[in-house]
Amino acid sequence: MSTNKLIDLLRIDYPIIQAPMAGSDSPELVAASCNAGILGSLGAQYLNPVDIDKAIKKIRTLTDKPFAMNLFALGKLNAPPAQLIEKAIAQLKPYYDKFDVPPPTIDEVINQINPDEQLKVILDAKVPVFSFTLGMLDAHWVEAFKKNGTILIGTATNVEEAIVLEKAGVHVICAQGAEAGGHRGTFLGDYRKSMIELTLLIPQVVQAVSAPVIVAGGIMNGSGIASALALGASGVQMGTAFLTVEESAIHSNYKNAVCNNDPDSTTITLAFSGGAARGIDNLYIRENPNAELLPFPFHNSLTKPFRKIANQRGEIEYTNLWCGQLGKLARKMKIKELVAELVAETNAVHCNLASD
Amino acid sequence: MSTNKLIDLLRIDYPIIQAPMAGSDSPELVAASCNAGILGSLGAQYLNPVDIDKAIKKIRTLTDKPFAMNLFALGKLNAPPAQLIEKAIAQLKPYYDKFDVPPPTIDEVINQINPDEQLKVILDAKVPVFSFTLGMLDAHWVEAFKKNGTILIGTATNVEEAIVLEKAGVHVICAQGAEAGGHRGTFLGDYRKSMIELTLLIPQVVQAVSAPVIVAGGIMNGSGIASALALGASGVQMGTAFLTVEESAIHSNYKNAVCNNDPDSTTITLAFSGGAARGIDNLYIRENPNAELLPFPFHNSLTKPFRKIANQRGEIEYTNLWCGQLGKLARKMKIKELVAELVAETNAVHCNLASD
Repeated sequence: MSTNKLIDLLRIDYPIIQAPMAGSDSPELVAASCNAGILGSLGAQYLNPVDIDKAIKKIRTLTDKPFAMNLFALGKLNAPPAQLIEKAIAQLKPYYDKFDVPPPTIDEVINQINPDEQLKVILDAKVPVFSFTLGMLDAHWVEAFKKNGTILIGTATNVEEAIVLEKAGVHVICAQGAEAGGHRGTFLGDYRKSMIELTLLIPQVVQAVSAPVIVAGGIMNGSGIASALALGASGVQMGTAFLTVEESAIHSNYKNAVCNNDPDSTTITLAFSGGAARGIDNLYIRENPNAELLPFPFHNSLTKPFRKIANQRGEIEYTNLWCGQLGKLARKMKIKELVAELVAETNAVHCNLASD
Repeated sequence: MSTNKLIDLLRIDYPIIQAPMAGSDSPELVAASCNAGILGSLGAQYLNPVDIDKAIKKIRTLTDKPFAMNLFALGKLNAPPAQLIEKAIAQLKPYYDKFDVPPPTIDEVINQINPDEQLKVILDAKVPVFSFTLGMLDAHWVEAFKKNGTILIGTATNVEEAIVLEKAGVHVICAQGAEAGGHRGTFLGDYRKSMIELTLLIPQVVQAVSAPVIVAGGIMNGSGIASALALGASGVQMGTAFLTVEESAIHSNYKNAVCNNDPDSTTITLAFSGGAARGIDNLYIRENPNAELLPFPFHNSLTKPFRKIANQRGEIEYTNLWCGQLGKLARKMKIKELVAELVAETNAVHCNLASD
């Protein structure tokens, strides 16, 4: 019943959300997801307001279905002092040199992101769904989005956060399990205290809130979807499963690293962005075990120049390979085919004791 | 289908196993489980051969259904030198004093357990099912049990162990997730590398072996059972859920600690037995953070004298409170009622996308 509630709320065919993957998704990927009957999401965290607006317009030319835009709800940012930024840039010199790129300017590090301007352009575009992570939106933003008829999805990594989100008025809770790839969404307490796997997280969150709960983390196939639904989820959010689809523009080396990730060799690292995130272990992570030179998201701007080149060249030892656990179950096919397979697999699952 | 295969193999009504809980279970608890249509198991690890034989006979007077006996498959034990044992006893003096009990003698520490004698009495009793953990049985034991028509269940905490068990000829694999209470069953490599949660462990194990897989770890209700079945398990093994039943003889303070365990305050400790095990955090654990004075199972004999008294008195800060995660979902009722509720709950779960 709550599955249907989610479907009605989001106006989708299947309670599956293609997770926002800032840096790896695209308007084309999002629209293809929407056109396949699920909710596509664009991670806009690293886009400036002009590019966010362009992306929204692009999605709208490619689909007339509902879609989601996603940001980190970081609130007011306190830029680190210039001296600290200079020191951090000096420490990363070997990587700028290796990829023959100039380091970022101090202004680029400090002023890269203006959360309020990003929110404003998404608000004004009256997008169908806005999802956020790593924080709670200020009340005036919640009110403004709701006035526009935008459905709000907030991310929780523990029960306390889920309750805070529901009280603040979000429509849907996304519960992020420890298995999930990319940034940990924790905003209350240390992320290490909120590495809670799905089997423990889902029952506790669905008991604590009345909003529909979608869950993220290691869900790669129909068994995973059915398992999440059995535990009480109304839907699932899947990122890694959509990294390797044909519509995904990430380098083929990254796609292969995801599919060949057997045994699971992901790890939680702060080395790329200053924020804790799960990705495939690689040389850069091993060379920078304690590499939170600046707080998130400023550290992200530091590593961006060489990661950009590494991404383009497929030099996967020097860029973030965000990936959930069980990435090895990822498939290389068109999104429409993947969704059809996921739906068929899920509906073939028996989870009862009688006559199966 | 594999659910039915397991039911046929074990000759039970429901694919649920009451987990062996050495020290907390009893012939009465085991028989009540069997009479409720599931497989009861007795943890015989800390019993001498005479008491094992008595326990088997007692179970047989209480039920004519199949039951399981369980041991740790430790193989040959190498006793630590007397000097080391004396030193360890000296370190634990405050606890012997506190509970006014004599420390164990060196002979009691060294000769407490004779694995071959324990195995022999279980073999000779031709029990319906023999399950084991923390190792693989030697081939001659596997052959002997099979000759007697005993079904063998081996415990795996990772894919490699599951494959080893299947190759050695066990009939059923019990996959123990990180969520499970009691001793970690890991026998290949460091247990810390095999703290794998159910959502990751089940799909990998069921893919790797063709034997039916039962899973253990944090399963407390119908949602948990359905979720495990959805992921490919043929059945579940539940311990903590049976700690708090009316037939359980553990102290009411222990039962209350399990039910009130909200938020989950279990931890992995070596402080009681020298082996890694999950239990509710308490004073003794906090006082002994690095307390593997002797290797398992010798360390267990060291702490036994004062744990025995603490158990009797319900002084739960000084004894092992083995408990899985989600213990707070445990119920206080008769086993027959619990099993009926579990079955009804599981069969009420919908895990498909169509028309639910």
